[in-house]
Amino acid sequence: MIVTGEISLKTQGDGDILDITAKVQKHVTESGIASGIVTVFVTHSTCGITTVEFEPGLIADFQKLWERLAPKNVHYDHDTRWGDGNGYAHVRASLLGASLVIPFTDRKLALGTWQQIIIIDFDNRPRNRTVIVQVMGE
Amino acid sequence: MIVTGEISLKTQGDGDILDITAKVQKHVTESGIASGIVTVFVTHSTCGITTVEFEPGLIADFQKLWERLAPKNVHYDHDTRWGDGNGYAHVRASLLGASLVIPFTDRKLALGTWQQIIIIDFDNRPRNRTVIVQVMGE
Amino acid sequence: MIVTGEISLKTQGDGDILDITAKVQKHVTESGIASGIVTVFVTHSTCGITTVEFEPGLIADFQKLWERLAPKNVHYDHDTRWGDGNGYAHVRASLLGASLVIPFTDRKLALGTWQQIIIIDFDNRPRNRTVIVQVMGE
Repeated sequence: MIVTGEISLKTQGDGDILDITAKVQKHVTESGIASGIVTVFVTHSTCGITTVEFEPGLIADFQKLWERLAPKNVHYDHDTRWGDGNGYAHVRASLLGASLVIPFTDRKLALGTWQQIIIIDFDNRPRNRTVIVQVMGE
Repeated sequence: MIVTGEISLKTQGDGDILDITAKVQKHVTESGIASGIVTVFVTHSTCGITTVEFEPGLIADFQKLWERLAPKNVHYDHDTRWGDGNGYAHVRASLLGASLVIPFTDRKLALGTWQQIIIIDFDNRPRNRTVIVQVMGE
Repeated sequence: MIVTGEISLKTQGDGDILDITAKVQKHVTESGIASGIVTVFVTHSTCGITTVEFEPGLIADFQKLWERLAPKNVHYDHDTRWGDGNGYAHVRASLLGASLVIPFTDRKLALGTWQQIIIIDFDNRPRNRTVIVQVMGE
């Protein structure tokens, strides 16, 4: 059995991090599926998805990591060609990845206590974002 | 229902990036499965998979990112032991990941307009590569 | 059909890398499922999962990569707030990811010869760890 839904988000850009754990769990609960996987997929090329302990210190630490890994102030060919100024956001998103698969049993996501599902929006301005949430199981 | 296929690729190595979106969509279309997930898995330890806006500027930017993250000219124990000279390619591939899961509905991948599926071959020479494409759904 | 199990591990922390390929293959074999996917999910916020050629040179190279990407000796807000001293371990784990999906056919994981499944524990002390292994298919 498969139930596909969506989450709509407003982000502030510039590394904005949103905790979507409760929304994903709600899709699982309402699917009526007891066990299986949920695939969470971000349909944008400047956003990524992962898990993190969602507390303000780590949110700041994770944002600073990205500035070290793919700094804004180095040259990006994308910006020369398209003038978007968000080349750094694209390469960060491609490195982190757009897809996350989480198993669940008894209608409950198999997340650890300190694991929350987050979307990070690397883009250089506020955006409206769509996340696909597909529940598959029996 | 499950349909498992393969994509065969010739790569140039050295960070060569190939857009496999149309090939993956073809496997989904021909599977006869209406909705579910496709798991795309690279069976090599010096290749990775992700999504990116496939335009020449970003392709160059993504390749340069890897040279900053895991430079060729630092010491790799792998090269000392095996003489392959591709230690950098292995650690890059392990960081990026070999697996990508994408949901689909109505036989169409849930990719955004600017999201293409790419294989990046980090190895230091041209290679023949196999990518598993498994479609699962109903 | 879905079969969900667990792997329990003792790790040494500090970038300890364990090869869990045989354990994951055992879950697939014993599930009685012929083809499908196995989702391997680490339920901890300072551990990650990926594939690597499991040989001592690359194990050392991969550990050194993490010290370059997210060094221990830079400031982490997490450590100021909570005193855990493992801020670096959290951001490394979030970057690498907690989830890995591997297809299988004829009860055999679709891994390449040089691809082993590993857990890397970034935490700053030995830990007991739980990995969820969910086999789904037909």
